[in-house]
Amino acid sequence: MRGAEEGTKTVPQRLDPAYLPLIATVIGDPAGIGPEVCVKALATEDALHGARHVLIGSADAVRLAAASSGLDSRIRQIDSPHEVGARHGEITIIDPGSLPKDAWSIGKPCAASGRAVVEWIRLAERWAGEGQIDGWIMAPVDSRSLMLSGKIKSIDDLQPAGTYLLRVSPSLRVVPITEHIRISEVPDTVTTDAVSTLVALVDDTFKRWGMIDTRIGVAGLNPHAMGSEDKFRIAPAVERERIAGRLVEGPISPDSIFRRAMEGQYDVVVSMYHDQGQIALKTAAFEGACTIYIGLDYVHLTVPHGSAMEIAGMGIAQHASMTSAMKMAESLCKGNGFGDREL
Amino acid sequence: MRGAEEGTKTVPQRLDPAYLPLIATVIGDPAGIGPEVCVKALATEDALHGARHVLIGSADAVRLAAASSGLDSRIRQIDSPHEVGARHGEITIIDPGSLPKDAWSIGKPCAASGRAVVEWIRLAERWAGEGQIDGWIMAPVDSRSLMLSGKIKSIDDLQPAGTYLLRVSPSLRVVPITEHIRISEVPDTVTTDAVSTLVALVDDTFKRWGMIDTRIGVAGLNPHAMGSEDKFRIAPAVERERIAGRLVEGPISPDSIFRRAMEGQYDVVVSMYHDQGQIALKTAAFEGACTIYIGLDYVHLTVPHGSAMEIAGMGIAQHASMTSAMKMAESLCKGNGFGDREL
Repeated sequence: MRGAEEGTKTVPQRLDPAYLPLIATVIGDPAGIGPEVCVKALATEDALHGARHVLIGSADAVRLAAASSGLDSRIRQIDSPHEVGARHGEITIIDPGSLPKDAWSIGKPCAASGRAVVEWIRLAERWAGEGQIDGWIMAPVDSRSLMLSGKIKSIDDLQPAGTYLLRVSPSLRVVPITEHIRISEVPDTVTTDAVSTLVALVDDTFKRWGMIDTRIGVAGLNPHAMGSEDKFRIAPAVERERIAGRLVEGPISPDSIFRRAMEGQYDVVVSMYHDQGQIALKTAAFEGACTIYIGLDYVHLTVPHGSAMEIAGMGIAQHASMTSAMKMAESLCKGNGFGDREL
Repeated sequence: MRGAEEGTKTVPQRLDPAYLPLIATVIGDPAGIGPEVCVKALATEDALHGARHVLIGSADAVRLAAASSGLDSRIRQIDSPHEVGARHGEITIIDPGSLPKDAWSIGKPCAASGRAVVEWIRLAERWAGEGQIDGWIMAPVDSRSLMLSGKIKSIDDLQPAGTYLLRVSPSLRVVPITEHIRISEVPDTVTTDAVSTLVALVDDTFKRWGMIDTRIGVAGLNPHAMGSEDKFRIAPAVERERIAGRLVEGPISPDSIFRRAMEGQYDVVVSMYHDQGQIALKTAAFEGACTIYIGLDYVHLTVPHGSAMEIAGMGIAQHASMTSAMKMAESLCKGNGFGDREL
């Protein structure tokens, strides 16, 4: 990505600079470290004062996390996003009350937690869709609780239809056309329309977030981008979007495009399947990655770590990723681009 | 890979320690930087005295390279590998004489060079197959010369049947089941027999090269190694080879196996297709990579850079990769493992 000197050009902010975006964070599985990292970030990080924050989840879990972390922040329960103020020194939480205190215990996955998590997610989605909040963050869920709940068949069911998952690390941004599908199913999903649609969506979304002139690199599908799909499906999509005025190049050899992006040639890589980008990210640039949804009207992102039930309640979970996610959400909501994560 | 402290256990050497293996290096395209890096390595690197070296190619090209590099080494033409001695201070070369002096010029691809390169390669293969040399190195060829020659249809045609290409960088070793095939053709090539055969071949080959107890990681095919091929084809292959006494694990999630190998969990990764490993290597661990053939009775490897015709004849080409390749060939021929490239 570009050096700090060059910076990333940003569009004029859509919002009054004095406006403090309202960002909700679903606490994740109450039995994991989600409540703890939420509380620690909000109680200790002055850098978060550029936005208004509210938690969604079990107030019991949040109080327990504050206590086991040795924090004496005031925890105020409210009923709707409208009641959130900019007051610091207190943590506000909306708890629909659907998870009884005795239905779960710290460090243990269970169906009740899974059901509650799904309900909290639906609440956040509704409020974000209605514009009652500007964006929301998902703290770590637990796939065991979710499976036990019977509410979803696979963790992938939580991904809203028509969305894509943009992975952001300090040195690399990647968004694939598809997520968890078999390699044998990949070629059929690499169509001119699919590539073109994602390129346009990425460019438009980055613009809304404050980045203009986004340089998009499109990976090829086959070795050295020299297969028929590269020539007859990906290349025409890139050409179509270039004619539409976007700064897009491709198809680029899959084994060199990620290095090129890390060295500053592209702001984001559109990849043709899950592992293409994930191998690059997890092998070369895993530190600090978070996931941001593309294709929603609002800002929505998740933190990169799991529910870590084995250390829940011990007060030792690190909240750096949650703090980064909250600052990233604020920056995107304000149209300030990727904020201080921009290299 | 393992730290230097742990080292890699080696089997007893097959050879008399005083034996100096005979290593041939085909100079590559005479119009590129191949002759120059060969001459520079042999003329200046005392570290190469643990083996006997001979070049195969145009003596004119080698003399020209020595002159333009300001080296006054004696260049002695011989007729067969038997004539190579251990004498230092001279460079021996076998030139079948098939490339007339006026048929090529420095910095320009041409059919005559391509035809000569193919002839030199066939000579090296024959002498290695007959045991007249212990191993051979391929200096950079030029795909344009080779195509112009009409001798091959694709650069892949130079790969001997039944061989696999092991990429070796200081931090990662990877060998894929297949090379340049389309992604749509990949799933059919991932069979239990193919995986099992390659795992066994890697283990046996590493043993011959001096590494025992090689820890082999096998990548899955699908995201998180959770597809049907992972379960019904790759897992049984791993199980079969484990029962046969090999230290093999898998299928491992493709997006984490390379990081794990770099952190020391595996000595080598068997990957399911070209880009899986190449994305990891070129994004995270490109420095110093060379390619070693698996599946031959002798040692054969190539250097990782191209013919760089644009700087040929200028005396400025770096010969570090060629020196590394020559030392690596010596180490493998002596059964000393990956030598000083072992981290």
